[in-house]
Amino acid sequence: MTTEPTTLAPQTGTGFLLRKDQVLTVVDPQGGQVSDLFCFAADDHDERLSSGRTIDYANTIYLTTGHTLYSNRSRPMLTVVDDSCGRHDFLLTPCSQDTFDLLYPEFESAYHPSCLENLATGLEPFGVTADQIGTTLNIFMNVWPEPGGELHIDPPTSVAGDRFVVRAEMDLHVGLTACSAEKSNGGVCKPIEFSVSGSDRT
Amino acid sequence: MTTEPTTLAPQTGTGFLLRKDQVLTVVDPQGGQVSDLFCFAADDHDERLSSGRTIDYANTIYLTTGHTLYSNRSRPMLTVVDDSCGRHDFLLTPCSQDTFDLLYPEFESAYHPSCLENLATGLEPFGVTADQIGTTLNIFMNVWPEPGGELHIDPPTSVAGDRFVVRAEMDLHVGLTACSAEKSNGGVCKPIEFSVSGSDRT
Repeated sequence: MTTEPTTLAPQTGTGFLLRKDQVLTVVDPQGGQVSDLFCFAADDHDERLSSGRTIDYANTIYLTTGHTLYSNRSRPMLTVVDDSCGRHDFLLTPCSQDTFDLLYPEFESAYHPSCLENLATGLEPFGVTADQIGTTLNIFMNVWPEPGGELHIDPPTSVAGDRFVVRAEMDLHVGLTACSAEKSNGGVCKPIEFSVSGSDRT
Repeated sequence: MTTEPTTLAPQTGTGFLLRKDQVLTVVDPQGGQVSDLFCFAADDHDERLSSGRTIDYANTIYLTTGHTLYSNRSRPMLTVVDDSCGRHDFLLTPCSQDTFDLLYPEFESAYHPSCLENLATGLEPFGVTADQIGTTLNIFMNVWPEPGGELHIDPPTSVAGDRFVVRAEMDLHVGLTACSAEKSNGGVCKPIEFSVSGSDRT
């Protein structure tokens, strides 16, 4: 089966079961929009996506087609099978209320939607809490370090229709967002589309 | 009180309680040796060191004097109060048996001491398991990305006597190692020294 594309409205997120061998396609429909992804082994949430393991084994901070995303137990969780953009971030945690409070004084500590809240809400039906959500794969996010280490968060390089496609290497509980941080998305938070293909074994 | 310096033999580690306002000094006695650090809030292990939060708030991949190390709840855990080296890594997870199996075929999947095992053993008395240990602050580890993202793990730039000093901003359970990975330590695994100063409130 292949699901119809689902649209995540700006500054929202969701959670879903992705079965082993199913393929998740994340599309930036308008261009310039980030989508944060985090996942857990469906049968044991103590096993979760690990940026540090993945970056170590891939030997690069930029993940793209052919790379494997590893768990904290060094087991493959997802394989990147297609990537039409080529620039994603795996250094930074999902934006949270604290991110806006600490980094963006223009919001004056008022409530702000965030990827952490949206991931936690999306994964809550599976029993996941915000504390368990670590560094996300920030699809289409354009983060780069200067040689001295300083980080730049520039607008995504993705254009309308760009896609990032992963295959599940185990049954996963996946959280996915249309990122809520204006700065990461060229000033305007836009929607994200996704679809799942492959057998659901039901 | 100030403790006498403790020596961690090559390829070993430990765990200890570090009280709020106590100061931990980590010394590279011979030069060229990495020490991995991870920590948890002593009163709630669901709160733990977060590389992603820290890098985001510091806006650099290289942490040094004046920077704050944050938890996954965006609360300060440690403040760097002195750093005579200036090059440490906060991208990579502690070396583990899987690291050697996947990256270093010269060890032919035989047992190899690792920072993950040593951290888990050191923190076991506090009820911590290996699954809970995320991306470590790899003191004196010399990791740098090319502009294209490729990572290099070069010998540490630390010389004999270099120190990295942090102050606890909350009560912490700290794991600390003398790193076990030959490649990260210029080919030879050496000892690490550490000491704690400040009131123990006992």
